[in-house]
Amino acid sequence: MVATSALSLKTVPALAQSDPLPSWNEGASKSSITNFVARVTTQGGPDFVPPDQRIATFDNDGTLWVEQPMYVQFAFILDRINLLAPQNPSWKTKQPFKAVLEGDMKALAASGEKGLVELMAVTHAGMTVDEFGKIVTDWLSTARDPRFKKPYTELVYQPMLEVLAYLRANGFKTFIVSGGGIEFMRPWTEKVYGIPPEQVVGSSIKTRFEMRDGQPRLFRLPEVNFIDDKVGKPVGINQHIGRRPIAAFGNSDGDLQMLQWATMRGSGAHLGLIVHHTDAEREYAYDRKSHVGKLDLALDAAAVNKWTVADMKNDWKRVFSFG
Amino acid sequence: MVATSALSLKTVPALAQSDPLPSWNEGASKSSITNFVARVTTQGGPDFVPPDQRIATFDNDGTLWVEQPMYVQFAFILDRINLLAPQNPSWKTKQPFKAVLEGDMKALAASGEKGLVELMAVTHAGMTVDEFGKIVTDWLSTARDPRFKKPYTELVYQPMLEVLAYLRANGFKTFIVSGGGIEFMRPWTEKVYGIPPEQVVGSSIKTRFEMRDGQPRLFRLPEVNFIDDKVGKPVGINQHIGRRPIAAFGNSDGDLQMLQWATMRGSGAHLGLIVHHTDAEREYAYDRKSHVGKLDLALDAAAVNKWTVADMKNDWKRVFSFG
Repeated sequence: MVATSALSLKTVPALAQSDPLPSWNEGASKSSITNFVARVTTQGGPDFVPPDQRIATFDNDGTLWVEQPMYVQFAFILDRINLLAPQNPSWKTKQPFKAVLEGDMKALAASGEKGLVELMAVTHAGMTVDEFGKIVTDWLSTARDPRFKKPYTELVYQPMLEVLAYLRANGFKTFIVSGGGIEFMRPWTEKVYGIPPEQVVGSSIKTRFEMRDGQPRLFRLPEVNFIDDKVGKPVGINQHIGRRPIAAFGNSDGDLQMLQWATMRGSGAHLGLIVHHTDAEREYAYDRKSHVGKLDLALDAAAVNKWTVADMKNDWKRVFSFG
Repeated sequence: MVATSALSLKTVPALAQSDPLPSWNEGASKSSITNFVARVTTQGGPDFVPPDQRIATFDNDGTLWVEQPMYVQFAFILDRINLLAPQNPSWKTKQPFKAVLEGDMKALAASGEKGLVELMAVTHAGMTVDEFGKIVTDWLSTARDPRFKKPYTELVYQPMLEVLAYLRANGFKTFIVSGGGIEFMRPWTEKVYGIPPEQVVGSSIKTRFEMRDGQPRLFRLPEVNFIDDKVGKPVGINQHIGRRPIAAFGNSDGDLQMLQWATMRGSGAHLGLIVHHTDAEREYAYDRKSHVGKLDLALDAAAVNKWTVADMKNDWKRVFSFG
């Protein structure tokens, strides 16, 4: 009996049992993550980083969850416009609302940034912060992705969830740094990613504090406060975190400056990783010519700066938890 | 021997040994803090709050450290102007610089907000974020408060350090929410208060991300980004934390809206506390008529809203650790 037990224990593959990244195939991408973590956590090693400085930042759209065929927040806008249309009869004849109601994506695109600002104003402003959070939560509980027929919060990348958990288990503080709306993410990031609201950085509109009926409230205004994209990402990181990350994860040119900020430093271990969407079968395949999540400059920069390019098709055993 | 040991143990005052707030005299102020913490941490109790929602926000100037006879950051500005004067000969004849160099506080006051903005521009902008952090750290290591002859970072209130530690020991996340400059605080708040940079909210100027000599940097611009005071405090709290605090600590009218935001809620335990400067002997005595740290509207609101008013003279056994 004793001998058999010992044998059983030996035959269990120890590595597989303790593998912190089971959805990643063995290879250079996976090794770059585990090697980096080993270096910065080895006490007395040349690259040791104290836990309080282990800051890792993650883009959201296309890095942690699906961004095709359109950003989830854009699907939210379209749904809200349709839902609010009966109370706004003038929208039937007024762009860009008419385009949304008729599903005319060409006319919608033609309305440009001005059109988008108008859509944002009526869907994202004019309510309190609490009310907006509830609207987002309610919408996510019923909305379904058109291709996968799943709630959007299930279209998160299992390999990236494992990276988040692995980093946190090694003393990292994980942050989202997204071009998406900060208040659009906060209602669900803790449950889905284990990232609390205070560790979410994103684009925002202005809010106004006021007393209404003897109660304080924060009212959302139709005015841009901050765009957390491209050169805005290091600015947002500094404003919210006040420290330079040593690891950054992105998937598009919007993440280029965040990756530069995290990795182009005089000394010390660092990790830059780009999720490359190469898997049209299990998810989507797109990069240099995509309208959503264009990856061009950052892909060139990855080669120069030795950032890891995670090839979704070859590096990921599975894409989603439901795979 | 056995009997004696048992007696010795019994005669040790158990409460004093485990008192989390030893610098607070027994009384209503101290009890309001310990009762609040007991309520929100009692599992199964009617006021239990899960740890992730235990958010406490603290003003800095006058709440955690001394703000008289002038804000520490203002002393920094005056010192910087004097230090930079040799490289700026025109300042000798140009206001508001002339007033600073001549120590003419009346002329300086007459330069008003416009003057202050000019002083901020030359002392707080025109360098990278890293460079500014080093300037602040270097200055704090040599600057001394004129009355106590101590580094400013030692002029922190021992009773409030105990509140910070006590709340954290009970699962709270503690944040600074100050009208002072966010980058003026971050270099030292972790060491002095145990509050890391990412939990510091404050006023800020804009920064610009740029590549210089192949290296990324964040450059500080002479342009206001956000004023984290009065109605700005709940806005800053929402922007950075994304949750409503259940406890807030302040000392002036600049903290009124933060206290309202934390405590005026439909249900649930909450704590609002105002540090009332009543001790001219050990520190300073000022409130309704003070130019720095005016406490007038918030003192009236404290009575209405049942906020704790900590009377520095009577509630605090000692003010500083060096007392």
